[in-house]
Amino acid sequence: MNFCSECGAPVRFEIPRGDDRPRHLCHHCGTVHYQNPRIVAGTVPVQDGRVLLCRRAIEPRHGYWTLPAGYMENGESTEDAARRETREEAGAEVVMQGLYTLIDLTHINQVYMMFRADLVGGFEAGTESLEVALFDERDIPWETLAFPTIRRTLEHFFEDRRRNHFPLHASTIDQPMARQTPENQPADK
Amino acid sequence: MNFCSECGAPVRFEIPRGDDRPRHLCHHCGTVHYQNPRIVAGTVPVQDGRVLLCRRAIEPRHGYWTLPAGYMENGESTEDAARRETREEAGAEVVMQGLYTLIDLTHINQVYMMFRADLVGGFEAGTESLEVALFDERDIPWETLAFPTIRRTLEHFFEDRRRNHFPLHASTIDQPMARQTPENQPADK
Repeated sequence: MNFCSECGAPVRFEIPRGDDRPRHLCHHCGTVHYQNPRIVAGTVPVQDGRVLLCRRAIEPRHGYWTLPAGYMENGESTEDAARRETREEAGAEVVMQGLYTLIDLTHINQVYMMFRADLVGGFEAGTESLEVALFDERDIPWETLAFPTIRRTLEHFFEDRRRNHFPLHASTIDQPMARQTPENQPADK
Repeated sequence: MNFCSECGAPVRFEIPRGDDRPRHLCHHCGTVHYQNPRIVAGTVPVQDGRVLLCRRAIEPRHGYWTLPAGYMENGESTEDAARRETREEAGAEVVMQGLYTLIDLTHINQVYMMFRADLVGGFEAGTESLEVALFDERDIPWETLAFPTIRRTLEHFFEDRRRNHFPLHASTIDQPMARQTPENQPADK
């Protein structure tokens, strides 16, 4: 941030009076520009015991598999956001079954909120997906999942399913994803 | 938002190519300025069956009672944020007991995340509080609570405590708070 979005004057990054951390501050009009974490909302859509995954048509992680999820928009609820992303990325309608994983990504200022959901009817790849498919547990493409949040959510899901008990799982990820090296690069990428 | 925070040029509010809703868009440098809901994180601090409330020393709702809560900052987890707000507003340390209410405020783009917590040791009013005190259920100042999210969280808490079962409660509030009229104005305001 270089300029005040209210008046257009240059901003400084400094601690406002009475605050305890630096903010982008406009000395011309006095506006303090706060920056806060963003919510990524999505679903674990399930049908006949299989989970719906989308292969990403966009960066980052183009070509990798993900659960449908994306940034929550102003004016919608967390469940609305998760449902909308599922519709946009997977052409799928779902019946929501409650918040399932809450994952704080403190190094990139994101909060993942993934909901369990029953997939109702069909599905098709949206513009942000190359393909969309249902997976049995044994067929999950663990080596080509897009993000650690997706892996963690799926691991919880299959473990909980063995006990038929799905409590909320809250956790933190504070490290960047391991870089792909020849050793851990998936064979088909 | 009037000016681009990256380059200082005036922004337009219009639908970017490939998007489906209007954004603040800079035609000079091409930046799309997304705006997303903010998380308000807080606690229900409990000690010997009593709940810690803070009387607000700041607007909005100066003089009204609230649970300690405030905007989550970049770089922290949701639990970190709830713990920090409890420390700042009530001078109190807590042991977190998990997410308890998730309330979407779709009309003001906030997501409340309130955690149950055990209050450890003492407390004192921070700079944003006029006073801080422990309340038995029968003494809760229902008529002078600051926000509907606080009322709803406390209602859930006391109801759940009778059954000693505290599931996550997710809900939405999409209406502005009822305006204070002489009829519903608290007697002491």
